Amino acid sequence: MKHFISKAGTLSLSLILILSSCGNKEKTDNVMIMETVSKKDATLSVIHSRKSVRNFIPGKAVPAETLDTLVRAGMAAASAVNLQPWHFVVVDDRAVLDSLAAGLPYAKMLNHAPAAIVVCGDSAIKAGDLAFWEFDCSLASGNILLAVEAMGLGAVWTAVHPDAARIATVREILHLPDNIIPLNVIPVGYPAGAAKPKDKYDPRKIHRNRY
Amino acid sequence: MKHFISKAGTLSLSLILILSSCGNKEKTDNVMIMETVSKKDATLSVIHSRKSVRNFIPGKAVPAETLDTLVRAGMAAASAVNLQPWHFVVVDDRAVLDSLAAGLPYAKMLNHAPAAIVVCGDSAIKAGDLAFWEFDCSLASGNILLAVEAMGLGAVWTAVHPDAARIATVREILHLPDNIIPLNVIPVGYPAGAAKPKDKYDPRKIHRNRY
Repeated sequence: MKHFISKAGTLSLSLILILSSCGNKEKTDNVMIMETVSKKDATLSVIHSRKSVRNFIPGKAVPAETLDTLVRAGMAAASAVNLQPWHFVVVDDRAVLDSLAAGLPYAKMLNHAPAAIVVCGDSAIKAGDLAFWEFDCSLASGNILLAVEAMGLGAVWTAVHPDAARIATVREILHLPDNIIPLNVIPVGYPAGAAKPKDKYDPRKIHRNRY
Repeated sequence: MKHFISKAGTLSLSLILILSSCGNKEKTDNVMIMETVSKKDATLSVIHSRKSVRNFIPGKAVPAETLDTLVRAGMAAASAVNLQPWHFVVVDDRAVLDSLAAGLPYAKMLNHAPAAIVVCGDSAIKAGDLAFWEFDCSLASGNILLAVEAMGLGAVWTAVHPDAARIATVREILHLPDNIIPLNVIPVGYPAGAAKPKDKYDPRKIHRNRY
């Protein structure tokens, strides 16, 4: 009797054990063990395992196509009246990353992050007299954070808006027009150390049919 | 000759095990063809297939535990300084759903939605003098919208904040305290019809190292 075992690397990979025999007298068993993942389980797992990663493997670059995949995920977010009032500045220039780190009090990890995505909103785009860019850009940022987790990368939302000084700093470094507001700077890299997700479940935050 | 057939969960996963005779009645060959999905592919697929669903199968209720799964996904969102300034009002009372539909100009689908989640923010919770509830609650809402898609449900963000009249309507119906601001009302149900995701990819929204 022979065993063929392939380990499940990621959550989704299948472990298959096939025993077969043909043309000899030895009796054989047919055994199969599988681990699979559903779209539901994979997505909920990513949502609950997402964490803020502030330490990155030094010098391990994030490929340009990976950064593009993240930005594409951001652009798939819901958008009020489909106005898509977002812009994404992908930063992988060391000098620009270091300038942002120097100017932003809570983004010092940019000094050792290989890349960052700055999600910006166009404050001139409105639905009637209402602006939704803050919500649309938050949703786009959320998609990026989940795509990061799903791809084995690490990232953290470092806030820029609504802090006027941080907005001015990022505006100057990235040459943003007056109507383009930087919502955040999201450093992206390969996780170093073991950041853990927080369990934020709190039944006191759940209300039924009325507050 | 034996047959083993395994069916997939929510994502299409096919397993075909063909047992064919080898010319000897007791001996078999095994041929296996299978498709599996990675956590990355499943999550990106959900992100890109998420769409706004406004039509629901009438009378098909969403189980309470499913609504709880959605709210738990919401509470797993990133939160500035981990302040978690969110509250979730789960609405499945027909009278409350109809009252919201009557009072909100862009949420008439609540008349035939079996449930809704109202994501609210506590405007009294701040980090220093900065409020981040709008961003945190948007991220929580985004997690809910993606969990909805992953679970084969349908939903749509209908905006409340920052419209003062809609806020007042929801506040009265759900008995919200003054510091609790309803960001949106998210009707949830089983999709009727075939809403399609929008392709929002726009390379003009992507900038490299500077705007």
